[in-house]
Amino acid sequence: MNLNILLASKSPRRKELLENAGAKISICPSDADENIDENDPVELVKKLSFLKAESVYNNEKDNIKDSDTLVLGADTVVYAGGKILGKPADKEDARAMIKMLEGKEHSVFTGFTIFYNDGRKVTDYSETKVYVYPMSDEEIEEYINTKEPYDKAGAYGIQGIFGKYVEKIDGDYQNVVGLPVSKILQTIKHSK
Amino acid sequence: MNLNILLASKSPRRKELLENAGAKISICPSDADENIDENDPVELVKKLSFLKAESVYNNEKDNIKDSDTLVLGADTVVYAGGKILGKPADKEDARAMIKMLEGKEHSVFTGFTIFYNDGRKVTDYSETKVYVYPMSDEEIEEYINTKEPYDKAGAYGIQGIFGKYVEKIDGDYQNVVGLPVSKILQTIKHSK
Repeated sequence: MNLNILLASKSPRRKELLENAGAKISICPSDADENIDENDPVELVKKLSFLKAESVYNNEKDNIKDSDTLVLGADTVVYAGGKILGKPADKEDARAMIKMLEGKEHSVFTGFTIFYNDGRKVTDYSETKVYVYPMSDEEIEEYINTKEPYDKAGAYGIQGIFGKYVEKIDGDYQNVVGLPVSKILQTIKHSK
Repeated sequence: MNLNILLASKSPRRKELLENAGAKISICPSDADENIDENDPVELVKKLSFLKAESVYNNEKDNIKDSDTLVLGADTVVYAGGKILGKPADKEDARAMIKMLEGKEHSVFTGFTIFYNDGRKVTDYSETKVYVYPMSDEEIEEYINTKEPYDKAGAYGIQGIFGKYVEKIDGDYQNVVGLPVSKILQTIKHSK
């Protein structure tokens, strides 16, 4: 399957995951307004992924002639203790987020929307449960003093230093990194 | 936690996982006889990890003065359809293994043994269930024509190209890569 993806996301991790799976990626940041009022994490990530993909599709549709080319939008949040966690604003925010995650289970939701070149579109999501070992205050301080938390939903990167505190997951690992690549590829495969 | 680990394994992936978690690694390949007769995957990986660690501990014990230094042995197998899969011998073997894994669930077991500098030792294991999407014959051929399968138990690398065929896992991701680092670090922490 040859795939050219116009990715409505600036995330270097999403680009890398898709490239590892063999896709060619063009980064097309969307100009969608991402401030929406939605408290359900599944609805939130689905809506935001749709808005991002739609924005890029509307800008680029005249350039998408090829049936192997599509637009992909995605949004990831961490959901813990009934709260939706995005990226931390600062160190204090990162500390508060890690304290909500250590010693218990939370969920990571990624919504994704695909616009095909013929105008068909599909939105879906993936949920992964993540179980984090208890962390001491010293371990939390050490972690939030690294650069890792600051560009990531929930203030951690499972693929980085934080991996050593993750007991187990239930779901797709790449979804926690930022994109459920295998589910997206299956969706595309079955849409042909 | 400062940790100096004498690693009874030549696996570059195990070394990298431990280094990412902040440990200093010295590679000390064991001279243990790894041909043992054992059909239970848990018993097999526990016994092999013990034999590897014991061999290195016996060679190095006079050099391990420091309580932050320890010997670690590990062994990983894939268990599918009642069969234990190690590394594939050749392309035909890799093809047969991938055909046993695609479209269904299997388990990855890693056994590990730690020898501390005072002679105490502990053996434990981790199991992760891995769910693989159905793969076409073309996809299987494409995969076994890469270099990826040939140094890995079960003929796949979840962290590489094969990741795009993995629907989800239940357990520790790093265990599938080759070493349950978070469980090993917890074991060390609680032994102090």
